[in-house]
Amino acid sequence: METINEFIEKNKDRFLEELFELIRIPSISAKPEHNEDMIKATEYIKEKLLDAGAEKVEIFSTDGQPVVYGEKIISKDLPTVLVYGHYDVQPAEPFEEWDSDPFEPEIRDGKIFARGADDDKGQLFMHFKAFEYMNTNQSLPCNVKFMIEGEEEIGSPSLKDFCKKNKKMLEADILLVSDTTMIAPDVPSITVGLRGLSYLEVEVTGPKRDLHSGLYGGAVANPANILAKMIASLTDENNRITLPGFYDDVLEYSDEERADMARAPFDLEAYKKELDIKEVSGEEGYSTLERTGIRPSLDVNGIWGGYTDEGAKTILPAKAFAKISMRLVPHQDSGKIDKLFEEHFQSIAPESVTVEVRSLHGGQGYVAPTDTAAYQAASKAMEKTYGKKPIPTKSGGSIPIMSDFEEVLGIKTILMGFGLDSDAIHSPNENYPLNQFFKGIETIPYFYDYFTALKK
Amino acid sequence: METINEFIEKNKDRFLEELFELIRIPSISAKPEHNEDMIKATEYIKEKLLDAGAEKVEIFSTDGQPVVYGEKIISKDLPTVLVYGHYDVQPAEPFEEWDSDPFEPEIRDGKIFARGADDDKGQLFMHFKAFEYMNTNQSLPCNVKFMIEGEEEIGSPSLKDFCKKNKKMLEADILLVSDTTMIAPDVPSITVGLRGLSYLEVEVTGPKRDLHSGLYGGAVANPANILAKMIASLTDENNRITLPGFYDDVLEYSDEERADMARAPFDLEAYKKELDIKEVSGEEGYSTLERTGIRPSLDVNGIWGGYTDEGAKTILPAKAFAKISMRLVPHQDSGKIDKLFEEHFQSIAPESVTVEVRSLHGGQGYVAPTDTAAYQAASKAMEKTYGKKPIPTKSGGSIPIMSDFEEVLGIKTILMGFGLDSDAIHSPNENYPLNQFFKGIETIPYFYDYFTALKK
Repeated sequence: METINEFIEKNKDRFLEELFELIRIPSISAKPEHNEDMIKATEYIKEKLLDAGAEKVEIFSTDGQPVVYGEKIISKDLPTVLVYGHYDVQPAEPFEEWDSDPFEPEIRDGKIFARGADDDKGQLFMHFKAFEYMNTNQSLPCNVKFMIEGEEEIGSPSLKDFCKKNKKMLEADILLVSDTTMIAPDVPSITVGLRGLSYLEVEVTGPKRDLHSGLYGGAVANPANILAKMIASLTDENNRITLPGFYDDVLEYSDEERADMARAPFDLEAYKKELDIKEVSGEEGYSTLERTGIRPSLDVNGIWGGYTDEGAKTILPAKAFAKISMRLVPHQDSGKIDKLFEEHFQSIAPESVTVEVRSLHGGQGYVAPTDTAAYQAASKAMEKTYGKKPIPTKSGGSIPIMSDFEEVLGIKTILMGFGLDSDAIHSPNENYPLNQFFKGIETIPYFYDYFTALKK
Repeated sequence: METINEFIEKNKDRFLEELFELIRIPSISAKPEHNEDMIKATEYIKEKLLDAGAEKVEIFSTDGQPVVYGEKIISKDLPTVLVYGHYDVQPAEPFEEWDSDPFEPEIRDGKIFARGADDDKGQLFMHFKAFEYMNTNQSLPCNVKFMIEGEEEIGSPSLKDFCKKNKKMLEADILLVSDTTMIAPDVPSITVGLRGLSYLEVEVTGPKRDLHSGLYGGAVANPANILAKMIASLTDENNRITLPGFYDDVLEYSDEERADMARAPFDLEAYKKELDIKEVSGEEGYSTLERTGIRPSLDVNGIWGGYTDEGAKTILPAKAFAKISMRLVPHQDSGKIDKLFEEHFQSIAPESVTVEVRSLHGGQGYVAPTDTAAYQAASKAMEKTYGKKPIPTKSGGSIPIMSDFEEVLGIKTILMGFGLDSDAIHSPNENYPLNQFFKGIETIPYFYDYFTALKK
């Protein structure tokens, strides 16, 4: 029998070419003009799943972007792994900051550079290729199902409904996801916590048209100045979020738990150097890893208003806008926080402007247990590949659909991710190291073996 | 001899067609891609000055946009009026808020709608046509010179140098400018004060690339949040500007002077209704007219950073920017305020970001005396046309070059403007009432007559 490493070595060029084909489709869920690309991506995924040996492969319509499903059932008596991933990607702007075309993958310094190279096309594709290996070598030890959606980057608005409608079809023992990071190429880790998300857009309206800032400046409220004041007031001098009630449900960790978390390796100087910042900044009294792992945050994701082109235009803008998101921790509720934000933001608006708040996207946080067969299997599989036992970590990111899976499908999730923090996901020059891509393919069949053995 | 009104009546369609030709040239000084349009505009102006009877018409190169000069000298013993205007216009964005093409003038409701319809192409053109009348009818009572520049909207960076180099050629008794407003079509007024301007652009840089707001949010300073805090701190709860030393040189008016100014007609309800705002807002303790007339202001003219397109992109932006301008009053110095702003803005930046401040544009304020022949002539001329003696007013706007004229050419300026506040200059749907255009043409020859008589 061919080993997984032999299989990778023989086929690596083809794997990359196939992944690149998927990356070349700009399947950006945030932008309606890419709807045809979403269809193209699903058709390509269907083809690749069939090539890899999946059966009953089908593209399901939803109220939003379609979901691709496929499966390989060996026996009712064997456990079933449900693989989740997403074919949609973040927008690529600002284009000018990319060193190469975001939708024409390029290999430089041993890394694939492209939008989606890691998140999540690269990580998803590892599962297709690992599955292909197990099929080709008749070594698949259990049943496998695939559920690949196209709305993860906009908060998976249609997937919960899809799960409800197809609960029977999706029955499984564990949900396996590769959409997270590990600490470093030589420090494997498994994500056991994810933050939730509330993402809103605010619009501040002043006068009905842009005004001459000389004729009106000083006498008419400027929506951009007001928006700045409103945003500024959302956090205090200790970088705590000022929305009344915001921290009410936040899970506070014991000193012991925090001491335990503090054992994860972290090099602050390297972190600052990698980001080219002089100082980190965050909630008073917490470490950097705690600030992203167990504490909520509030960020302006985008802000705009008035004249933003070259030169000087002397206007008092009619409107100013911001996209503001909050990362939430257990047990904050995304819907509750949306509402709280909206009420508070309206309440602090002066009478000289009107304010609109729109919720764009959200989801609950997730905490994964470590005492399960899935965690043990993932831990052993990564140890086999990387030669070190992985560390359980809490990630600052969000995969909002996780808590819905648990609620609707009644199963836990294992987040076995192979990304690195330096992969610049959601940023220009997103990349995925070839080594992580191939190690991921190597690790997945081990997971299936260990998981099946532990469940037997 | 033909009266000015007969002349206007006979030629009005031609006047409009000629003005429209000028308006159709998008001579936007803020944008280098319009450099060819600037040339076109100067050539057109040269042609129209020649048609109207000017001599020695010449297009002068400068370090920036060219200046058109022309003159008609009758006698060394007669006074000389130097007419100043500008052929450049503000950018037209946001285009989608225009009801018609900003560069294809359209007459609706008795008004010309187009970028530059008022500021300053419409007001400048009145002078060409009044001059044409006086030439045609051999009624020009004094010498006239024209100096038409193309950089007023970006702060006239080359004009001071042009004046220095051509001091002899520009010798005159008074500078006549129509680039301001009057209170209402039935309330003539003459602007005797203009605010100065400091216009800067700030750039706040955090991490070297946009970051995933989940993985980094809460641990790395967000330049957009920081920029909001920095802008918010520039004004206090009484809407006073907090830059240390900002008010040091501000000319404070006596209670008597303020009571005098308060006699200018002003309808707050109509003002709010016209702008569609519920409340005005400005420095505590001052009226709306005082806030724009005699008090300085600070406005965000534009702000941008991060993801500003459709949908939700979860990034922590690498950079955030704002264009911030301050209107200054006598005796604040624009250069001093620029420096003060830059130092203060740098000083309030936290260590987690770096800040750059660039001065884009600026100029000193201007106060015109009312006890001069020019003021008396303008007052009588407007009274003749409008049937009411004009009120001296202080405008919130800036014509930064005014104080330079006084310094370099040693002459005062008379601001005989025919715009209205409702003309939406610098805004979408800029317009200029036909009636103001024709009344302006009518008034100008009266000014020449009275001014010459008073100077004799």
